[in-house]
Amino acid sequence: MNLQEIPSFTIRQLSTAFARKELSPVEVVQTILSHISETNPRLHAFITVLQESALQEAKEAEAKFRSGNISGPLQGIPIAHKDIVYTRGIPTTAASKVYADFIPSYDATVVTRLKAAGTILIGKTNLHEIAFGPTSAVSHYGPVRNPWNLEHIAGGSSGGSAVGVLIKLCWGATGTDTGGSIRVPASACGVVGIKPTYGRVSRHGVIPLAWTLDHIGPITGCVEDAALLLEAMAGYDPNDLTTSQQPVPNYIRSLTGDIRGLRIGIPKEYFFERAEDEVIQAVREAIRVLENLGAYPEEISLPHMKYAPLVRGAIIFAEASAYHEKALRTRWKDFSSDIQGKLTLGATIPARRYIQAQQARRLLERDFLNAFQRVDVIVTPTLPVVPPKIGEEVIKIKGIETDIAGALIPFTFPYNATGLPAISVPCGFSASGLPIGLQIGGKPFDEETVLRVAYAYEQQTPWRNKKISGW
Amino acid sequence: MNLQEIPSFTIRQLSTAFARKELSPVEVVQTILSHISETNPRLHAFITVLQESALQEAKEAEAKFRSGNISGPLQGIPIAHKDIVYTRGIPTTAASKVYADFIPSYDATVVTRLKAAGTILIGKTNLHEIAFGPTSAVSHYGPVRNPWNLEHIAGGSSGGSAVGVLIKLCWGATGTDTGGSIRVPASACGVVGIKPTYGRVSRHGVIPLAWTLDHIGPITGCVEDAALLLEAMAGYDPNDLTTSQQPVPNYIRSLTGDIRGLRIGIPKEYFFERAEDEVIQAVREAIRVLENLGAYPEEISLPHMKYAPLVRGAIIFAEASAYHEKALRTRWKDFSSDIQGKLTLGATIPARRYIQAQQARRLLERDFLNAFQRVDVIVTPTLPVVPPKIGEEVIKIKGIETDIAGALIPFTFPYNATGLPAISVPCGFSASGLPIGLQIGGKPFDEETVLRVAYAYEQQTPWRNKKISGW
Repeated sequence: MNLQEIPSFTIRQLSTAFARKELSPVEVVQTILSHISETNPRLHAFITVLQESALQEAKEAEAKFRSGNISGPLQGIPIAHKDIVYTRGIPTTAASKVYADFIPSYDATVVTRLKAAGTILIGKTNLHEIAFGPTSAVSHYGPVRNPWNLEHIAGGSSGGSAVGVLIKLCWGATGTDTGGSIRVPASACGVVGIKPTYGRVSRHGVIPLAWTLDHIGPITGCVEDAALLLEAMAGYDPNDLTTSQQPVPNYIRSLTGDIRGLRIGIPKEYFFERAEDEVIQAVREAIRVLENLGAYPEEISLPHMKYAPLVRGAIIFAEASAYHEKALRTRWKDFSSDIQGKLTLGATIPARRYIQAQQARRLLERDFLNAFQRVDVIVTPTLPVVPPKIGEEVIKIKGIETDIAGALIPFTFPYNATGLPAISVPCGFSASGLPIGLQIGGKPFDEETVLRVAYAYEQQTPWRNKKISGW
Repeated sequence: MNLQEIPSFTIRQLSTAFARKELSPVEVVQTILSHISETNPRLHAFITVLQESALQEAKEAEAKFRSGNISGPLQGIPIAHKDIVYTRGIPTTAASKVYADFIPSYDATVVTRLKAAGTILIGKTNLHEIAFGPTSAVSHYGPVRNPWNLEHIAGGSSGGSAVGVLIKLCWGATGTDTGGSIRVPASACGVVGIKPTYGRVSRHGVIPLAWTLDHIGPITGCVEDAALLLEAMAGYDPNDLTTSQQPVPNYIRSLTGDIRGLRIGIPKEYFFERAEDEVIQAVREAIRVLENLGAYPEEISLPHMKYAPLVRGAIIFAEASAYHEKALRTRWKDFSSDIQGKLTLGATIPARRYIQAQQARRLLERDFLNAFQRVDVIVTPTLPVVPPKIGEEVIKIKGIETDIAGALIPFTFPYNATGLPAISVPCGFSASGLPIGLQIGGKPFDEETVLRVAYAYEQQTPWRNKKISGW
């Protein structure tokens, strides 16, 4: 086996190589660990690296493969968890000095599930402090940098997870997504990230940002890997009353490559008028690819999208400030000034504003559900812009200045407000060589169709195979 | 037919008399209308009486009975709507000067449904102003008085509906229930009121008080009538996204009188320690009746009940102030001082307090769902006290002073916080001759068992047949 090829392997290819004993999990984990020590000082992708336990888990996996004892497709697959996901006995810092010494006494449900599926935990990934920001440039452990261009953000808040997956420090990583925190870094790094339906994946044991908007999902190198990881993570959890009892489908089965006859909704308001030309061009081209595959594009209307920014502001800020209220009072100086400002602002929001925002959410939900009576998925850009430079706080889009969050999450947030599933898949590169992402959203609990369309698109386009040099 | 008997008729008996032409809907409506003119100056049960249209509807019903054209058990049955339920072309005042001139342009879904079932609308009933209070003593149209003793409250906020049903100005009336507003007046007046599961009955076209707690349900003279009306009102409504798609059962079928083997939960915390002795005695006696019918009482624990008052305060006040914010600003002087104070207080609640209260709700929900793994229903008093006098603002229970809302709704509110169904049925009278109510709560969407237990109890006890004299 040519070790140079391994980074381009899918989870299934890696798993097959393990099963055929062409490759050893120990060898892969050793390569990863040395790759991390080499790259982490520049990229800050990981906060904690679990050298010893990862090697130990790799040895156990290897023994199982040797004895022909294979439990499933994730056995021996190296993964990572975002560092707000509880790992028993392992620090869980939320990238904040406030939580730097916090060591959970139990595993989050997603940790338990991925462990049971046989994965190897490489470490805990860096993020935007307490997951409250879309850049990952604010972290007690240093800013996460974009491997495509170190001066640019990797996106956030799950930036370390996306970077880890991109340069194959892991084959999959958990992300959390309150306004776009899985899809934004997936788009910015040129990888795949899916935010499932609200209630599809348990949030038990994950530090919340905003409980009515928080979601958990996988970031991976390709759509097939996303389907495999999501299936392992999803399902009812008695410890999280917001999880649904709906059975978890076999997601791999929906990856047929066939999307003939599917109806693709293209929103006429809000999305395309607010994106950079380069982004629009890539997404329009992606729509043509879907059309050539036999899908029918159809214009749809989401008339209440104009309320989305107000909803976002009131709900995320107020809920975050409710959760972190005590920490803000007792550990004020240990938060970064970015987070101090946001949590303080959140504390000033009156309940009636918050409640009005929750009601406006219903208007967005109704818009989407109406549209989904006519179409199977909705396609938009993931980000309105190509990833800006680290430190840029004001972004100009088509001549209009907006703050960094307003610039990055306006297209992803509607899926948090409505709880509907959405994926980001790479759909091109800017002239400056930075990735552009395509967002595909779906009906409640219809991750299957979202994955199906993303997979068909990915198979027809070269983006997933574009090599990143120097890593 | 002896007209003296009619007030004791159930809906089914009335309907049978119509079908047999022993009685005419016109005759009944005429009697009701004159009874209202006679009693309303003292009781203030109605805000609007629909003399002409009610008589017209009665004539139409009579014509149908004459031609043998009978659509269902509610045909020709006189009902009333609480005056916060939208009626097209008919004033809907919410008992407030602020809404005194408001005439809706459409019917609420419950109005449409009960109309389609053939009922006759007698008028719109009085309530606590904007449904924000448990006494019905605060109304732009005068305080609702309890027919059992005019110095005492009828309970609220749906006081007029309960009084109307008690003295048979209608055979059923809608109530809304945010903290107990169906069950409190049902208990105080000695009639039946059921608050169904959140999502069971559409709230489309009803002025909200607190949208995450508001419910709609019927107030009636007996359990069978409640089952009939609930069935007609319930079901999915595309105009109310919070309604459930679960099919509506045939509730009458669950009224078998047989409750052998059912497990009756008796909470060990909160309820019995906070009620007056006379109330506890009546409820303990009711439990013995259920036991004699073959049910098994079992002690259950609801350890987080102590949070209920905090949850109640934050959520009802904040949500009410969100909805009425504009009216409070523009029509301040037209609200009563009671409502001015409550809405102003609500406006000062910070979002983070509200959010923490929403999260505490989950603890109550978990307590109830845990208990319902062991029992089929939970039985408590409806009110901790017998209905106090109009104007009493501070109530002493077992030596502890509490405000009037705190005294009246602590036992009913937990079912609003959890969204679970609960009924109040009469279970006795105080030494002073005022009614005492038994509250029976059930599992999500299990109104059938709640009705079944209430019916079996009612059939074994004399309370429903106790005549009220002088009306």
